[in-house]
Amino acid sequence: MNDKIVQFMRDNDKVAVWLNIKVLEARIGYSRISMVVRDDILNAVNICQGGAIFSFADFAFALASNSHGKIAVGISANINYSNPALLGEELIAECSETGRSRKLGLYDVKIYKDENRKLVALFTGQVYIKEDKFEV
Amino acid sequence: MNDKIVQFMRDNDKVAVWLNIKVLEARIGYSRISMVVRDDILNAVNICQGGAIFSFADFAFALASNSHGKIAVGISANINYSNPALLGEELIAECSETGRSRKLGLYDVKIYKDENRKLVALFTGQVYIKEDKFEV
Amino acid sequence: MNDKIVQFMRDNDKVAVWLNIKVLEARIGYSRISMVVRDDILNAVNICQGGAIFSFADFAFALASNSHGKIAVGISANINYSNPALLGEELIAECSETGRSRKLGLYDVKIYKDENRKLVALFTGQVYIKEDKFEV
Amino acid sequence: MNDKIVQFMRDNDKVAVWLNIKVLEARIGYSRISMVVRDDILNAVNICQGGAIFSFADFAFALASNSHGKIAVGISANINYSNPALLGEELIAECSETGRSRKLGLYDVKIYKDENRKLVALFTGQVYIKEDKFEV
Repeated sequence: MNDKIVQFMRDNDKVAVWLNIKVLEARIGYSRISMVVRDDILNAVNICQGGAIFSFADFAFALASNSHGKIAVGISANINYSNPALLGEELIAECSETGRSRKLGLYDVKIYKDENRKLVALFTGQVYIKEDKFEV
Repeated sequence: MNDKIVQFMRDNDKVAVWLNIKVLEARIGYSRISMVVRDDILNAVNICQGGAIFSFADFAFALASNSHGKIAVGISANINYSNPALLGEELIAECSETGRSRKLGLYDVKIYKDENRKLVALFTGQVYIKEDKFEV
Repeated sequence: MNDKIVQFMRDNDKVAVWLNIKVLEARIGYSRISMVVRDDILNAVNICQGGAIFSFADFAFALASNSHGKIAVGISANINYSNPALLGEELIAECSETGRSRKLGLYDVKIYKDENRKLVALFTGQVYIKEDKFEV
Repeated sequence: MNDKIVQFMRDNDKVAVWLNIKVLEARIGYSRISMVVRDDILNAVNICQGGAIFSFADFAFALASNSHGKIAVGISANINYSNPALLGEELIAECSETGRSRKLGLYDVKIYKDENRKLVALFTGQVYIKEDKFEV
């Protein structure tokens, strides 16, 4: 995967900027990223907001699905929460391509925490692949 | 629904604060909220980031599912995107309770934009209901 | 919607035949169907098998999404179960089109039972629309 | 996992009987099953009906989620289709437990076909775990 695309996506996806996501690895059909749960992404019962976890997974999904160089737009996603993410914990999201045809791509993302790789959530996303190339 | 709970959730859900969500209506099993798509929630191809739309819907879901006064935690959610949300557009999310037993609740959220109520996304969420009361 | 397409789908979808589904109404972007929970669609704990409920909803989804006359193939679906369906109960599935562009369509299906319209499950499905016309 | 439970589920889940599912392996938190696409599970455009694929995956999910000996009821499921399954093809479904707490369990199922393990669909399911033991 083109490093310029990764850098462009990381810098221009404003939610990735806000969450301060680090890209650990990004190649064709695969990505791995990390972030730390900050005070300002907690919900009213003091665990990491579902939307923040989703947004984090969604960025791993965007990296992997755009990795072929064509613009891929998310058309659906599903998330199942397994364990809460708490203040200060480091989360890892790992996205793999499980299927890709000319028009559609399918990706799953596992979100883990800490050294024991305890599952926080499981995310599945599908994209529609446009004819347009990703230009940076 | 207790106005104090609504106010507490709105002020203590940090993502709701960040997105500057307005609560238009909140009662038992129902909520309706709005937000405006700002520059800082766009993705790298200049449409509203999927995670931001999800987070917006997720807050409507949190309001409606906690409206009975017991703490409800999201265990899964599904989102389908229909039309992109663009810079400056006002989004409305409307959440209805479609099922609730002692332990589980089911909610759907429609996210619309503008006066024509064009569908942006469709969200479904399920909660696990704890014994704990929502104390504010 | 063309009555011949409805009849063709009803007679050639082998799962619809097996479940003995009745088409109550079918028009552009909408369908309503019924079936009765028989002994041979129960699971090992004697409630209607999840797959049978899904298949029932899936057929309402197929009718509504093919109603425009172009072949639409299901690419994803999500189901949330609310109340069990029991032996002998009549189920109704009602499918509405919530979004449709040139290439993609989005549908939701509510599955109810009995005169009180108690919710059994909530289903959301997305289709990819092919160029091919539905020929019968 | 208790062989008697596996046998009981296989013989008493009427949809598993109808689909003629073979249990290849079943142990705590894991299952692998197979079936052949027959003429009577095709849809009106001659590919394996989505509901039949779902039902097949759902049975792998039922085996794995009940493997601990407590009754587990499916509360939601999501499926993404990747490649069609055709008449005569043998399908394999492999289910893994990705998370389990006292009350909730999370499972994913991959459905493959043929020797190349081409992905047919990706299924995620969540269960609510009851206090009742699985008695056979």
